[in-house]
Amino acid sequence: MLVSAEDTDDTLAGYRSSIDNIDAALILLLAERFKITKQIGKYKASAGLPPADPQREQQQIERLRELSASANLDPAFSEKFLRFVISEVIRHHDRARSDDSGNYTADS
Amino acid sequence: MLVSAEDTDDTLAGYRSSIDNIDAALILLLAERFKITKQIGKYKASAGLPPADPQREQQQIERLRELSASANLDPAFSEKFLRFVISEVIRHHDRARSDDSGNYTADS
Repeated sequence: MLVSAEDTDDTLAGYRSSIDNIDAALILLLAERFKITKQIGKYKASAGLPPADPQREQQQIERLRELSASANLDPAFSEKFLRFVISEVIRHHDRARSDDSGNYTADS
Repeated sequence: MLVSAEDTDDTLAGYRSSIDNIDAALILLLAERFKITKQIGKYKASAGLPPADPQREQQQIERLRELSASANLDPAFSEKFLRFVISEVIRHHDRARSDDSGNYTADS
């Protein structure tokens, strides 16, 4: 376990503890999100739905840009964030497809 | 407002509604996280603490990698995610510094 020289500062330690709590929440929410996109992939394959839906992605981006503006967050960051997560979803789908010959399709 | 051809499928709409809820939670948590790193920047400058702390970043990465493994998430993704968020924090600090001549320092 590494110990930082700044860990002795109580105020800083308090801020960092909040960052750590938020990061844990972010990671667990992302884990849940990937569980759902995996289910979507299976469902779309079983229902014969087309894999990609560019309109859906555009809707997601527009919605998050609006939400982030109201939260005083740079809308461009929200779009970058969503594209980052979507690229991971596509990587999951690609890996699943190569493991399982075509049972997964993309929906992010 | 764009309307997707797949919006008529109730099962898919249910999954997507969950994704939208999770994405909203992620964006709002990220907004809160950036508020805290902004406070850290101000505090470190006022307390005369050094701007960067590489050991702290290493601790954050190790912790999130462990947490993501327990949540069945690829630890490499968690590390990539944290680095993505940290790069945005640094961008915020850089922008604040250029606006305000040196009152902000890096802590992610």
